[in-house]
Amino acid sequence: MSPLRFTNESSSNGMIERDFTLGDVPGVLWSPASGGDPAPLILMCHGGGNHKKHPAMSGRAQRFVTGCGFHVAVIDTPGHGDRPVTAHDEAEVAALFAARAAGEPEGPIVVRYNAHLAELAVPEWRATLDALQQLPEIGANGPVGFFGINMGTAIGVPLVAIEPRIKAAVFGQHWPDVLVDKAKQITIPIEFDMQWDDEHISREDSLQLFDAFASTEKTLHANSGKHKELPRFEADSAVHFFARHFGRPATSPA
Amino acid sequence: MSPLRFTNESSSNGMIERDFTLGDVPGVLWSPASGGDPAPLILMCHGGGNHKKHPAMSGRAQRFVTGCGFHVAVIDTPGHGDRPVTAHDEAEVAALFAARAAGEPEGPIVVRYNAHLAELAVPEWRATLDALQQLPEIGANGPVGFFGINMGTAIGVPLVAIEPRIKAAVFGQHWPDVLVDKAKQITIPIEFDMQWDDEHISREDSLQLFDAFASTEKTLHANSGKHKELPRFEADSAVHFFARHFGRPATSPA
Repeated sequence: MSPLRFTNESSSNGMIERDFTLGDVPGVLWSPASGGDPAPLILMCHGGGNHKKHPAMSGRAQRFVTGCGFHVAVIDTPGHGDRPVTAHDEAEVAALFAARAAGEPEGPIVVRYNAHLAELAVPEWRATLDALQQLPEIGANGPVGFFGINMGTAIGVPLVAIEPRIKAAVFGQHWPDVLVDKAKQITIPIEFDMQWDDEHISREDSLQLFDAFASTEKTLHANSGKHKELPRFEADSAVHFFARHFGRPATSPA
Repeated sequence: MSPLRFTNESSSNGMIERDFTLGDVPGVLWSPASGGDPAPLILMCHGGGNHKKHPAMSGRAQRFVTGCGFHVAVIDTPGHGDRPVTAHDEAEVAALFAARAAGEPEGPIVVRYNAHLAELAVPEWRATLDALQQLPEIGANGPVGFFGINMGTAIGVPLVAIEPRIKAAVFGQHWPDVLVDKAKQITIPIEFDMQWDDEHISREDSLQLFDAFASTEKTLHANSGKHKELPRFEADSAVHFFARHFGRPATSPA
């Protein structure tokens, strides 16, 4: 296993930000500035076309780190952020844009491309977790959560299905096609977000994927609005969800 | 309008509890012990077969009062708590128990009986709100919320449909039959709870009622589990929902 190497460190608003690489994979680890005993770790996967330090990632991280004292790690998915873009990535993104321009369904292309990315990303996430658990401020025995919507769910569902160290997960906003069979293997507590008026993913498809999880504790959050209109308060809800399961008080910005 | 009359006052855990009557209607008002400026009011309706001071009511009230500085009022529904039980109440409850014992569906009886109770209770709630808004610690202009599950939804949906002073509501766990047309008139923010494995109310029925609300902001919370297994964390979620809309910080017990 290649070692985790920190390449940069900065700090603001009570949060330490450390860039790292693990072999070819660039990542970021956000931690409480206060240091302290081993604390829970949230693995957060960015959405498609996005990257590890997108404001949606750093903004959520801030809530986990300063609200709960958790660590948050994000890595760039293959073809995203600081990763090289392959000819296959370019072709799939072009196919997606062409479908969009033609008013054709995006689902079949996104499902296929995300499944490909998940095959590459799942082993990277497991290696990242191996390496992060060697840090004394995280440790090998603390609780680990996973938080990923959209592409984050396409990668997270197959990851969580085979990764027993992950004890609670927030998923959502993806087609069921290739994920249902993996979801049936998942028994940890789940919070699942869908958009009630999603123009890309039908209600039936979202409900089918939620239904597939074998978890005895699972909660669906369906909000009015279109695909891109997931309310910001669902990030707070995710913080409360992990705080509840990992036994840390969460403060609400409400 | 008959005046609101306080009949008893006690205090514990930072919460003042005042029993009141408004004409024939007995109620309870829970308020912050600290007093202070006018604060939001949550009208909370108890479930069927239940009463105004059931632990589910006083427990939730504690969170609103000491967590957010809100007031919480509950009145006994006709045929419940300290209210007289009529021959009609007795007949309907007997019919419900008979259906239960025979393994027949409860829905048709509950829907019919709750619709009857709602006709009686809606004007009582409006008169209660009139009277409570005359108290200086509540006032006529502060935000008012409604929180009612099960029978609380059967009463709350027709109430909110005609009561413009109520600005946000938590509903859930009821059949759509007589409520859909009222729900279509409701445009305030809604949080709606359903049980994914409810043995009495089908998924389709719950989703139909949620779908009917005309609110641009509405959120469905569907939890795994049977009818009586609504998770306790949904009470916290309701607190966060009202705190978000009424601009008061909420502390989490998680």
